[in-house]
Amino acid sequence: VHIEDRGYQFADGVYEVCEVLKGQLVDAPRHFDRLARSLSELQMKWPMRRPILEQLAREVVRRNRIFEGYVYLQVTRGVARRDHVFPAKDTPSSVVITARYSNRNAAQKTAQQGICVITVPDERWTRVDIKTIGLLPNVLARQKAKEQGAKEAWLLDQAGCITEGAATNAWIITQAGVVVTRFAEQGILRGVTRTTLLEALADLGLKFEERAFTLAEALQAREAFITGATTLVMPVVRINQQSVGDGKSGEYTLKLREKFHNYAHKQ
Amino acid sequence: VHIEDRGYQFADGVYEVCEVLKGQLVDAPRHFDRLARSLSELQMKWPMRRPILEQLAREVVRRNRIFEGYVYLQVTRGVARRDHVFPAKDTPSSVVITARYSNRNAAQKTAQQGICVITVPDERWTRVDIKTIGLLPNVLARQKAKEQGAKEAWLLDQAGCITEGAATNAWIITQAGVVVTRFAEQGILRGVTRTTLLEALADLGLKFEERAFTLAEALQAREAFITGATTLVMPVVRINQQSVGDGKSGEYTLKLREKFHNYAHKQ
Repeated sequence: VHIEDRGYQFADGVYEVCEVLKGQLVDAPRHFDRLARSLSELQMKWPMRRPILEQLAREVVRRNRIFEGYVYLQVTRGVARRDHVFPAKDTPSSVVITARYSNRNAAQKTAQQGICVITVPDERWTRVDIKTIGLLPNVLARQKAKEQGAKEAWLLDQAGCITEGAATNAWIITQAGVVVTRFAEQGILRGVTRTTLLEALADLGLKFEERAFTLAEALQAREAFITGATTLVMPVVRINQQSVGDGKSGEYTLKLREKFHNYAHKQ
Repeated sequence: VHIEDRGYQFADGVYEVCEVLKGQLVDAPRHFDRLARSLSELQMKWPMRRPILEQLAREVVRRNRIFEGYVYLQVTRGVARRDHVFPAKDTPSSVVITARYSNRNAAQKTAQQGICVITVPDERWTRVDIKTIGLLPNVLARQKAKEQGAKEAWLLDQAGCITEGAATNAWIITQAGVVVTRFAEQGILRGVTRTTLLEALADLGLKFEERAFTLAEALQAREAFITGATTLVMPVVRINQQSVGDGKSGEYTLKLREKFHNYAHKQ
């Protein structure tokens, strides 16, 4: 990477992380759709035609012999003499694609135990609906979580509602059995796993609501969980050191985790 | 730069831009003090002892034979397998130092004519007091300015007050002759040029106030200007297509520009 890559000097770039299962990309169409939206919102071009980029991602998975894991894809506005304004239109964007193995059994064990989350104020910029590489606020939130023995930080808006996690979407299941996650119109990134899970919920006939929920409501919930391309559906058993429900991985949550891949697109 | 440099994947880094005049660094102690603060706020280490880094910056200036221009210095949290949480403590940080010539005569001509600014909503994260490389909101604001024929975008907070420019601090001189710039406690980056200029104002016996000012107040001002290490003191003659004062570079502003280097530290 060049030292004057705009990704390195300005965080002027976007990315996607896509799960790999049995050597195939999971929910690739949705990930590339979202990449298209990110690029478009920032007036960035595709570094190459979309089908070629998709093919390249699969090739990186294949050559690295990744059977289970994920692929990381990053596009920046390219290399140019440092200047805030966009470079000349013919500046080629920079692409990085990497693939990595991840241990599904270890993740499954974690899911059985459930994870702890903490809450921190949401200090990010207003355009968190774009999946940019400007992740420092997320880094700081995750680091704080780690220092407090937690795996994820949930971000609180000024109204005391949870927006999302530092790198995942946040969900609760109320005592009445309603699955709740924040609407995606603003304030959060529209997670691909989130979207697929919402479809699964509808198909399974489970009640769900897309709306904001408060920390207090989360602490009173029957179950809680997070979703993301690398975590899938991951039970939350403690929030700020307080147990959620009976303090064990939620029954519904584990079922949703189990069934998730029935609803995801693989190719 | 490695593709897994945390500066490239997370904007997990900080930077400084320091003016070079007659081959010497301008206000270097303040720039390195601020770098120290940025590093400390993000729990990052110095990549090497501070005097060595300062020496290195001077060496880059010397070897590139930069007589007039600026030096750019960036420090990131180093290279590590992608994970939001901080890497192991012994991970070396990455350093980039570049020096570049800039044309003082061209800048002086621009100053005589004055520049146009536009206003856009301030959409940045809450910790803009840290000089991080997460500059995408600034990039987008500057780009919007360029598209509207302006050189800088002033950022408006929710109260309708101007926080600062995309890459400079914002100032007005009221009809009563009081120089006004926003307090630096929060919401803006404490500019080195800003700090030096405040000292100059005190020394010159000019009245000044550190307080928020609204767009309406700016439009009624006698003069307006921006400050930054590369722009120095630069008159603003139009805001959102409306003239400031008589629409020409302000008399006081040009005097402050002229006298600025008397107050800056050179070495």
